[in-house]
Amino acid sequence: MSSHHIVRDDQEPALIIANGASCNNELLGQLLEWSPLVIVLDSAIERVLELGIKVDVLLGDFDRGFDPEYYREKQFPLEIVYAPDQDKTDLEKAFEYLIEKGHKAANVIWATGRRADHTITNMTNIVRFQNQLKIVILDDYSKIFQLPKRYEKWYPKGFPISIIPVGTVTGITSANLDYPLSNETLTIGYRTGSSNQVANDGIVTIEHTNGDLLMMECFD
Amino acid sequence: MSSHHIVRDDQEPALIIANGASCNNELLGQLLEWSPLVIVLDSAIERVLELGIKVDVLLGDFDRGFDPEYYREKQFPLEIVYAPDQDKTDLEKAFEYLIEKGHKAANVIWATGRRADHTITNMTNIVRFQNQLKIVILDDYSKIFQLPKRYEKWYPKGFPISIIPVGTVTGITSANLDYPLSNETLTIGYRTGSSNQVANDGIVTIEHTNGDLLMMECFD
Repeated sequence: MSSHHIVRDDQEPALIIANGASCNNELLGQLLEWSPLVIVLDSAIERVLELGIKVDVLLGDFDRGFDPEYYREKQFPLEIVYAPDQDKTDLEKAFEYLIEKGHKAANVIWATGRRADHTITNMTNIVRFQNQLKIVILDDYSKIFQLPKRYEKWYPKGFPISIIPVGTVTGITSANLDYPLSNETLTIGYRTGSSNQVANDGIVTIEHTNGDLLMMECFD
Repeated sequence: MSSHHIVRDDQEPALIIANGASCNNELLGQLLEWSPLVIVLDSAIERVLELGIKVDVLLGDFDRGFDPEYYREKQFPLEIVYAPDQDKTDLEKAFEYLIEKGHKAANVIWATGRRADHTITNMTNIVRFQNQLKIVILDDYSKIFQLPKRYEKWYPKGFPISIIPVGTVTGITSANLDYPLSNETLTIGYRTGSSNQVANDGIVTIEHTNGDLLMMECFD
């Protein structure tokens, strides 16, 4: 067992490296530093090992003539999880793996960019795990997570905030945003809360009554 | 008026260049070749002019200390459309501009990648224009468009097809897909039709009863 298992705290989020666009090395390094467990999805392992990252789990359906055993020899110990269920994405299977192992939180990188179908599915499917795993998706431009029914956090003035409904979300009320919401309804495809920003240094509050609401903190 | 206005047909789709990740030059060149009108959104003009592309319209809210007049001198003639409405994205304003000018179709590039909030909003907001403008979003990995209530097209065996509901879509029935759907309901965040593929060379049929369904043809 490598040294990081000793110094890291299992209460810190596990890190899932999916198969979309790679992120910058600074973000990768920050997330790796405290992660108690690193899961890599399917053929992303090729790009991950090139970066010299210690991987704990390789998970996938390995359905494209890809041989996971080859990587077992390259890095020991490596747990290989064969997850063939075609009704779920590899990312969902990784969330289920973590839940089963008792993890409470996960950061996810490389889950956006490249294929649009994977990007939208990865971003929106986190809502079905809301009661089991605290999930944050990160890339070079974005931090994405699901909002609780009442959310409060300190932000600086001008900080960009987008609130994106996964379906329809009702009873949305905000405080300290430039374009305030007051008991409003947002519906994906028709009315979203994209490109808002923080009005003044201080606490931002966002509440909603029903539905699944994503926070996206994004920068150009 | 430059020569492309003479040889091109206004029935061909206009091209909108948004402000996300750039696409490869081959895709860009293919779309430019037949486009009767090129619209560039806001500060993307800087990257576009570097590529030596003839632009017809520059549209945006120009809200970040950006001076559109500077570009009028760089390229003549250039129509500058100041669109300050903060309730709409620049891409939506471009769709409205095209509809007002009588265009029937638009291809959109650089609308995905980079900021996740812009990506998901751009991909899903096309549904509100479904009765006015035939919209296709393209990037290096993806072709995205809304499906009519009944869709039929010839595809080769193994072609990757993802059908993504914008909200909830009911009564979905498919023919000639590996994972067939029979009067089923898909809901964003909970159950999508991502990562299906064509069963055999031939016509694929996808029907639905209610709701907004996106087709995503995506490749790694």
